[in-house]
Amino acid sequence: MYLNLSQCCAEAKPGNGCVNDFSRTLSTVVWEPQIPPSAVTIFSGGTEGVLSPHVTFIVQEGDGSTDTGLVAAVGRTRDLGPHEIGSDAQAAEVSLKVTEMIADLGISIHDVRLVLVKCPLLTSEKLAVIRQSGQVPITSDTYDSMAKSRYACAVGVASALNELPPSMDISTAMAAGTVKVWSRIASCSSGAELEDCHILILASPSQSKGRLRAACGTMDDAIDARDLMHWVREIAERNGHIVQVFAKAEADPTGIIRGKRHTMNTDSDIHSTRHARAAVGGLIAGLTGDTQIYVSGGAEGQGPEGGGTLCIVYRMS
Amino acid sequence: MYLNLSQCCAEAKPGNGCVNDFSRTLSTVVWEPQIPPSAVTIFSGGTEGVLSPHVTFIVQEGDGSTDTGLVAAVGRTRDLGPHEIGSDAQAAEVSLKVTEMIADLGISIHDVRLVLVKCPLLTSEKLAVIRQSGQVPITSDTYDSMAKSRYACAVGVASALNELPPSMDISTAMAAGTVKVWSRIASCSSGAELEDCHILILASPSQSKGRLRAACGTMDDAIDARDLMHWVREIAERNGHIVQVFAKAEADPTGIIRGKRHTMNTDSDIHSTRHARAAVGGLIAGLTGDTQIYVSGGAEGQGPEGGGTLCIVYRMS
Amino acid sequence: MYLNLSQCCAEAKPGNGCVNDFSRTLSTVVWEPQIPPSAVTIFSGGTEGVLSPHVTFIVQEGDGSTDTGLVAAVGRTRDLGPHEIGSDAQAAEVSLKVTEMIADLGISIHDVRLVLVKCPLLTSEKLAVIRQSGQVPITSDTYDSMAKSRYACAVGVASALNELPPSMDISTAMAAGTVKVWSRIASCSSGAELEDCHILILASPSQSKGRLRAACGTMDDAIDARDLMHWVREIAERNGHIVQVFAKAEADPTGIIRGKRHTMNTDSDIHSTRHARAAVGGLIAGLTGDTQIYVSGGAEGQGPEGGGTLCIVYRMS
Amino acid sequence: MYLNLSQCCAEAKPGNGCVNDFSRTLSTVVWEPQIPPSAVTIFSGGTEGVLSPHVTFIVQEGDGSTDTGLVAAVGRTRDLGPHEIGSDAQAAEVSLKVTEMIADLGISIHDVRLVLVKCPLLTSEKLAVIRQSGQVPITSDTYDSMAKSRYACAVGVASALNELPPSMDISTAMAAGTVKVWSRIASCSSGAELEDCHILILASPSQSKGRLRAACGTMDDAIDARDLMHWVREIAERNGHIVQVFAKAEADPTGIIRGKRHTMNTDSDIHSTRHARAAVGGLIAGLTGDTQIYVSGGAEGQGPEGGGTLCIVYRMS
Repeated sequence: MYLNLSQCCAEAKPGNGCVNDFSRTLSTVVWEPQIPPSAVTIFSGGTEGVLSPHVTFIVQEGDGSTDTGLVAAVGRTRDLGPHEIGSDAQAAEVSLKVTEMIADLGISIHDVRLVLVKCPLLTSEKLAVIRQSGQVPITSDTYDSMAKSRYACAVGVASALNELPPSMDISTAMAAGTVKVWSRIASCSSGAELEDCHILILASPSQSKGRLRAACGTMDDAIDARDLMHWVREIAERNGHIVQVFAKAEADPTGIIRGKRHTMNTDSDIHSTRHARAAVGGLIAGLTGDTQIYVSGGAEGQGPEGGGTLCIVYRMS
Repeated sequence: MYLNLSQCCAEAKPGNGCVNDFSRTLSTVVWEPQIPPSAVTIFSGGTEGVLSPHVTFIVQEGDGSTDTGLVAAVGRTRDLGPHEIGSDAQAAEVSLKVTEMIADLGISIHDVRLVLVKCPLLTSEKLAVIRQSGQVPITSDTYDSMAKSRYACAVGVASALNELPPSMDISTAMAAGTVKVWSRIASCSSGAELEDCHILILASPSQSKGRLRAACGTMDDAIDARDLMHWVREIAERNGHIVQVFAKAEADPTGIIRGKRHTMNTDSDIHSTRHARAAVGGLIAGLTGDTQIYVSGGAEGQGPEGGGTLCIVYRMS
Repeated sequence: MYLNLSQCCAEAKPGNGCVNDFSRTLSTVVWEPQIPPSAVTIFSGGTEGVLSPHVTFIVQEGDGSTDTGLVAAVGRTRDLGPHEIGSDAQAAEVSLKVTEMIADLGISIHDVRLVLVKCPLLTSEKLAVIRQSGQVPITSDTYDSMAKSRYACAVGVASALNELPPSMDISTAMAAGTVKVWSRIASCSSGAELEDCHILILASPSQSKGRLRAACGTMDDAIDARDLMHWVREIAERNGHIVQVFAKAEADPTGIIRGKRHTMNTDSDIHSTRHARAAVGGLIAGLTGDTQIYVSGGAEGQGPEGGGTLCIVYRMS
Repeated sequence: MYLNLSQCCAEAKPGNGCVNDFSRTLSTVVWEPQIPPSAVTIFSGGTEGVLSPHVTFIVQEGDGSTDTGLVAAVGRTRDLGPHEIGSDAQAAEVSLKVTEMIADLGISIHDVRLVLVKCPLLTSEKLAVIRQSGQVPITSDTYDSMAKSRYACAVGVASALNELPPSMDISTAMAAGTVKVWSRIASCSSGAELEDCHILILASPSQSKGRLRAACGTMDDAIDARDLMHWVREIAERNGHIVQVFAKAEADPTGIIRGKRHTMNTDSDIHSTRHARAAVGGLIAGLTGDTQIYVSGGAEGQGPEGGGTLCIVYRMS
């Protein structure tokens, strides 16, 4: 299935991107009756700072047989029980599904540029279900459950793409933590409205002749502009233009960026994901000249700790 | 008075930079007993996103007779009555004082690179004083009074530096608004603890032989990286390094950046100054590789509307 | 039209009740297809503290000819132009419509217990329209426009119910301000989704024999429990029970409650309407034992300054 | 040591009462040089809603030999290592110290009306120390560490006052959780500036003849006004007046109050402690007519789950 990426399957919303973000649900309600049932919508809330609320679509080009340069697939895991959110089981389900989707596409894992996963979180209702069943929730903080769910997805993607350290299994990776385990390709966000994980794979096959391409990179920390500046220059030199950037961002959990203190983790008025989206969004918008980019907060296992993954979709002239 | 700018006279603080920012007052209390009485401290609150809390000093080099390349002066207006905050009178006082300080320094207005002003705002107590005296406050919103006070200072600076449109007086400029009237040099912030305006002038005389220099530029909007990228390259090519950046930032009051919507002005959870500092701070930190930069929110009359002023202090090798 | 008030026509929502409250729009979208086109829904956002998100309905009893004790009517003003929001014209339109609705009901103004008005606010888009037409908006702060719109409605209600000081006209009342002009009956809130004012009138005719009654009172300040405690006791003694309470609340604009400072107006992290709803909601829920009550923030002209209006709907056994 | 409680040793501050509350540190800096070194200051941040920033003092009456009716003592545990915060060791230290202080006062545990504890929390720096030493922190969320530290203190107080279920030891109590284990007397809050736990004990000996008395009660949930209304009436009937109320408040962790949903735990813009203080503060201020009361958020193990402890200090005429 080749794609004509007028824009990509994601939406950044003007809410807070946290537990009580109703802009997300509102979009779903307005949106879903108007798109084909086969479509998968992957939202990420929060358009802090200069970021502009927008929608990007992935649309199949004709019957899907023309080589546009970009290949995509969407899929869903099974529903996860409340006690499975953020667990090894979630990582295993994501890994299984991603592996299956890549096999169905008939591409190499080296051609994959982005695996976007939208995953569930623990709401008050789900916490109550877990407790009623006599189990102990992985966390009793609904906001914190978003982080744990994202990490499980990232481990699942890393496992499917052979990004885990040699002979490390999913369970060991889940315990190892974000310093040691991260994917170059995963971009995960969580939302209160989900029971399963929604997965979008974007690939840019090397042998393809199409004009639509995707590149990926990482930010080593939240101010690392190197990979993005490289691709901005490279694409400009080849007379291409950037169609969309998918970035993950996070507040460095050590509280330090390049040896200097930041305050994102100790601000009890604004959540760290909001700070991180605003800052990284400002940097990427400044470098690309575009505010309608996808910046998602909370990059646990998605790029180096304190940094995040980048996927740049561009079109050659 | 020549300066050895180890760093500049300003502090960015980890509070919210708004009316109830106690980090500002805390710093003042801790700070003031430890610095010479002649020193002027100019704070700007709020280190959103990647910005790092820090202090920058202006220290006189020896007896002040050696040419370091950078010249500075500090001064204060008279105390302003509560009803004068944000008024033509405030602009006139700032203009008068800046003019006097430049004359005392014996420099050309063309050598001035930065006029930092810290100005008072309307607290609940000041609003009560105004009402008790039978007057109508310029605004009854304490947060909004910060903007009005900053604009008055910017008009004062623009007047002193001949930046107002030909034959426009202060009173007309105050009424004209931020689309028509802005300074390339002013950087104003307001704080609850002040009664008067504190002014810092930094100049980089063209005939100077010192290695410390200052350049200025503007951001035309909150994602305009052009001037800063120019200076980053220029300074690197000349083997210099950036010592500090002083930037002003604001949410475009039209709600639009380059034709696309932003949500900074309609977010009732996070004030627009916090959004703007986070975004512009992310961009500047990414381009300079340094998070200890000065980014101050609320750029009314300080650079083009929706953008802001930039002052880059650097040292040649 | 007599009513069977299972509960009243209003909804308190779990958003922030401010400009970017998407829970409000979400409810509208989900809601509107499921209720009769003749129904008027009046929302008030924000369920801070102990307040519980809920919906209250006004349902006509049978064909409306049975005397339930409570009478209601709904109506709408014409659409207001952006420049009319918060203006004398808005007050005049509300006054006209309320007068007309009372006449249609055939009741005395002394039987009216509540006039709930939902009114528009100035969004970024509306501000742009005003500026493009060369006019100066009443305020350039979207959050502040909510207050101005509420006050205009309150003046309109006060005018229709003969609550204005003798021989004071609407225009004078608009200029007089909330210390001098307030209604005992009005309860106004504003929402981003409206163009006109939606009006709900509840009356409890004295000659009625029905078991459903409504009483009204005022809170003189945000901690004034006197009227509510009176009615809680009175209704209990008469073996009745409270069905719903409609309250307005606000942060005293003087910054003082009974001689002591409060900080609601100087908190730049949480808007004062959110503080006021949380505090007054806590008091009313504690006294009634019910958290599903309607507490709306921003009581400009609705009850004494710093206080608010109260309407208690109860059913006799 | 008998006391003349002009007011009690505590301060409620206008910050957010969370991790980045600089009003707390500011007060400490301004305050400490002005009070005797023997004094212990116990702060609680956050004056949401109608609550008024204030200070209450405990002052010794003359040489301490006159029977005022109220007895107090202050003490401190040893400094706690970062890895001990929120642990069994913290609970044991608090228990030890409280037991020792009561013995020193020579009073019965049944005369104790309030044990106020101020305890440390995990800052980013302390988290780094724990990780560097190869240990796993009890939580990696600085805000969450405040709750865990408060609970450890409450268990310590309950242990010292024989409030634990028969034959339950501290370690079992720590694991048992806030449904099963809570004190009627403890009031604990945490602050970033502490290394040890500061303890204040207030007792009202039954055999005392003084006019100053203290009573205690509990709130079973955040809208339970029963005990407070009882004491308000009782004290009024005996011609006394309330001097101060010390209350703890929390958002019910089940997300439910008397069968109805609340949204305090799912609001990612305002922390639940701020919601709870605002609501309970509104209720207590309404019932006592006083906004200068002490309401502290986060009542883990301090009163029934979802409710909190109350201590009412009053003076007989």
